[in-house]
Amino acid sequence: MSADEGASHASLQTNQERVVSHPLFERHRAVLDQALKAIAKRGYWSAFPESPSPKVYGEGAADTGNAAFDALANKPFPISLPGTVGTVGGERSPYGITLGISYPRVDLDALFAAIATARDSWRKAGPEAWVGVCLEILTRINKRSFEIAHAIMHTTGQAFVMSFQAGGPHAQDRGLEAVAYAWDEMRRVPARSYWEKPQGKNEPLKMEKRYAIVPRGVALVIGCNTFPTWNGYPGLFASLATGNAVIVKPHPNAILPLAISVAIARDVLADAGFDPNVVTLVAHEADDDMAQTLALRPEVKLIDFTGSSTHGSWLERNAHQARVYAEKSGVNQIIIDSVEDFAGAARNIAFSLALYTGQMCTAPQNIYVPRVGIDTGEGHLSFDHVAQGLAAAIQKLVGDPARAVEILGAVVNDGVAERIHAARSLGAVVHDSQSLVHPQFPNARIATPLLVKLDATDEAKYLKEWFGPIAFVIATDDTAQSLSIARRAVVDHGALTLSLYSSRPDVIEDTIALAEETGVALSINLTGGVFVNQSAAFSDYHGTGANPAANAALTDAAFVAERFSVVQHRMHVATVPQ
Amino acid sequence: MSADEGASHASLQTNQERVVSHPLFERHRAVLDQALKAIAKRGYWSAFPESPSPKVYGEGAADTGNAAFDALANKPFPISLPGTVGTVGGERSPYGITLGISYPRVDLDALFAAIATARDSWRKAGPEAWVGVCLEILTRINKRSFEIAHAIMHTTGQAFVMSFQAGGPHAQDRGLEAVAYAWDEMRRVPARSYWEKPQGKNEPLKMEKRYAIVPRGVALVIGCNTFPTWNGYPGLFASLATGNAVIVKPHPNAILPLAISVAIARDVLADAGFDPNVVTLVAHEADDDMAQTLALRPEVKLIDFTGSSTHGSWLERNAHQARVYAEKSGVNQIIIDSVEDFAGAARNIAFSLALYTGQMCTAPQNIYVPRVGIDTGEGHLSFDHVAQGLAAAIQKLVGDPARAVEILGAVVNDGVAERIHAARSLGAVVHDSQSLVHPQFPNARIATPLLVKLDATDEAKYLKEWFGPIAFVIATDDTAQSLSIARRAVVDHGALTLSLYSSRPDVIEDTIALAEETGVALSINLTGGVFVNQSAAFSDYHGTGANPAANAALTDAAFVAERFSVVQHRMHVATVPQ
Repeated sequence: MSADEGASHASLQTNQERVVSHPLFERHRAVLDQALKAIAKRGYWSAFPESPSPKVYGEGAADTGNAAFDALANKPFPISLPGTVGTVGGERSPYGITLGISYPRVDLDALFAAIATARDSWRKAGPEAWVGVCLEILTRINKRSFEIAHAIMHTTGQAFVMSFQAGGPHAQDRGLEAVAYAWDEMRRVPARSYWEKPQGKNEPLKMEKRYAIVPRGVALVIGCNTFPTWNGYPGLFASLATGNAVIVKPHPNAILPLAISVAIARDVLADAGFDPNVVTLVAHEADDDMAQTLALRPEVKLIDFTGSSTHGSWLERNAHQARVYAEKSGVNQIIIDSVEDFAGAARNIAFSLALYTGQMCTAPQNIYVPRVGIDTGEGHLSFDHVAQGLAAAIQKLVGDPARAVEILGAVVNDGVAERIHAARSLGAVVHDSQSLVHPQFPNARIATPLLVKLDATDEAKYLKEWFGPIAFVIATDDTAQSLSIARRAVVDHGALTLSLYSSRPDVIEDTIALAEETGVALSINLTGGVFVNQSAAFSDYHGTGANPAANAALTDAAFVAERFSVVQHRMHVATVPQ
Repeated sequence: MSADEGASHASLQTNQERVVSHPLFERHRAVLDQALKAIAKRGYWSAFPESPSPKVYGEGAADTGNAAFDALANKPFPISLPGTVGTVGGERSPYGITLGISYPRVDLDALFAAIATARDSWRKAGPEAWVGVCLEILTRINKRSFEIAHAIMHTTGQAFVMSFQAGGPHAQDRGLEAVAYAWDEMRRVPARSYWEKPQGKNEPLKMEKRYAIVPRGVALVIGCNTFPTWNGYPGLFASLATGNAVIVKPHPNAILPLAISVAIARDVLADAGFDPNVVTLVAHEADDDMAQTLALRPEVKLIDFTGSSTHGSWLERNAHQARVYAEKSGVNQIIIDSVEDFAGAARNIAFSLALYTGQMCTAPQNIYVPRVGIDTGEGHLSFDHVAQGLAAAIQKLVGDPARAVEILGAVVNDGVAERIHAARSLGAVVHDSQSLVHPQFPNARIATPLLVKLDATDEAKYLKEWFGPIAFVIATDDTAQSLSIARRAVVDHGALTLSLYSSRPDVIEDTIALAEETGVALSINLTGGVFVNQSAAFSDYHGTGANPAANAALTDAAFVAERFSVVQHRMHVATVPQ
């Protein structure tokens, strides 16, 4: 296929002609067209610049965002929701600050009644309006990236630059990607057809048929503590762009980033003449059962969930009235077979373990190394040398606390700290997790990665998720055994990422086969500036839906195709309709 | 969009370049290209001619097919399956003939072991091979349409011409439609991408990424008694075209049509160099729990089911390891508000009730008529006149038994006969169901439609499915009440079809709105040669997935998009790959 054909394939041509195009659709047509080209090619593309530079976001944007965030503290969040019966909220920054923001507590029956009213005109507005409104929301969210970055930082514990990039532009790109896939599927459904069936010598049968794209109902987005926007936007925008109403239920300690996003969405809806209750927020106390209560409401037909396997599986097994898209936990792995540039590999792995204190669903945990050691560009390295090399690379990365905290961020919750403590006794500690003091936030809890040496036979210890900065360097009989363990781990426990270091083409081939058979994304020989835990919108599929870590991928056709249905009507016509 | 753009949009261009195109893909490229155009436009198109004329299928084709069917009787069906441990089979024709055909009984562990072996090379063959093999299977099935028509007739009870058309070419078209949607989704995934991310003044990051389309695993097709091929082919071909292995489990009384289809599929697979165990058959005794046993096998990741709501819901609630596509039961309805050509409407409705003895998932059951009567082109008609007019049209249609049996076919099982008996006592009988004698098959059980008068208040009687030739003409306060009851019926009980007769634009508009809100396909003012129970491949969506009658539509993107996943691997490159 030539490049020109690809462009024509991805262009904005559409079978949908049922409504006059919406002004917001026209306003954002160019970016949608680029996004459609991007999902067809899946090379590098980004709509929202990741650099927080004033050259990109404007002089003063950083200060304005900071001030906007500061202005939110210690007061009710400015949002007016139907069925409000009080307030909730008790977010505490992992950097040791109490946010002091309260949110409306809503009565669910009143909320769903208001949503039922709001849904009707939204449903009838049609794909161009849905997509146009989504694109306007994303554009306005992007303008508030600095404010949202502070909100991300002080709810998730990510360092500021990561908060800005992953929680801002990268999350916005993922949202746009979902909108592009949604439009790409909807536009293929013709608005109408003329059906003329020959009847031999008799007059043909002639019908006109019309095909309406109809949303499923109410969608529920269940946010997580660590990536409220990056993991929340795809489901939110996939459902909204297909005409559904969306309830956003944030994690009790990461409400603010989604509250800001919901408030922007409601503003855009109102400005466009829609009832803002198309998008609503349900904030709630920690440890209540709001997620389950909402998930079982008969109105809820779509659920996007990011969180534990326990909660995700509960949804899959109990919310029968809804289609559940669940990203759960897993065991991510690195297989080291041989490596040309061991120093580069060690630096790369160290960064993957340290980035955001390993509190990423994509962070590696198990590192398999043959107990006889590996061949490198600088000769053979024993198993212990490999382990020590990794430990040294970690120590070099986090040795300077001022620099380290900008990579590590802060520990998100007590569970992570407890797991670090528990993991220390599993085996010989090669690199101990240290507590660092944050220069700006003395009350922040900062932890460097823990690296523990295990043997392949210690399966009971390493074949489960240790969420946080906890990794195991595991001695195996050989790479064949590493592959065999890795295969079983993906199939039984799930994984979002797999990483391989090998200079041997046959090992690379075997590992690609393993990845395809078990359904896990594979990175090969990362020694530079790309890390296994990073997943780029419009290029990397995040999750495959083919192993227990997730039942869907971000973002592909399967992620959007079931969020709407097609309802037809047909009638006879005398002549070809114009 | 101009017609030319549509054609270009639908053409065979593809992002998939990972394998050299398969010879079978090339052989059937032209028909696939036409099918892709058809699903983009959804006007009239058919690949497989529905006319059993010798001009189309060749002189002698009918006799050859008949002889082939006769040759199958009273012996083991010619198929060799792994894990065979005996025989099963006891199909009895609704026309009163015992088929006397036996099928292998398979040991499931041995079967799944053989499938595991077969899957591997099939998975690796890639989309072009999967699609090419599917198209060859459909082509060979089409050549045996007469033989299959006899098999359909003597397992379902359909009359011969309907057996030929619905069980042959129409089912083949539905299978092709599923293949076209599968290809249309798979071809959008690029085989590889080049990702180059700018790094300011530094060298950009450069990666090559490859995206493999990976099937989900083993697919299970659970066939029904009444439309084994029409309802079976879409799931079978959607799963096979996306690289999955497929187990076909027919209804114990409708094994033969699917056994022939499976045998053809296995022949094509073997001829193309694949292990035939990619497609297998599990025949079993009536009333055992084979469907449930198979559905809970961990290897089974996709299930296509047609049957009762009880069984369908059980699958949805218990086969958690699989994605279940279920077409279940429902209550189809006709709203009569006003009608220009009442005689035409009555003829049309009578045919819909009589066709295949009402044993269609799309056959209407509840007919709502205002108790004050309706306006027609020939003046006002009282409720009783409308009811009598329908009864007269039924009687006229089935008055001549020799002609009637070619519409009615035969009663498929005792349940239908029992329901006719039970329904007689629900209200005043306007047209009684009569037993007719079939001129060629004296032991066939033939039943004409039963039409019973009810009142809107009799909800307990009519708001449930009475599968078979049972219809109710129901007196309502007005059309608004008819619409209100119809809405509740679709939402609570599900429906595949809704039909409206009205000359009033506002009623038509309200009914379209009702159809879109509740997710049911609507036919308006059918008075000619199109019937509400008919659903044309490539044009009519069968089911919406939006009401309890079915959780998916035949056939759209959502029906195929989840049958495969995309698994990527990525590695750095020094230069742009060629």
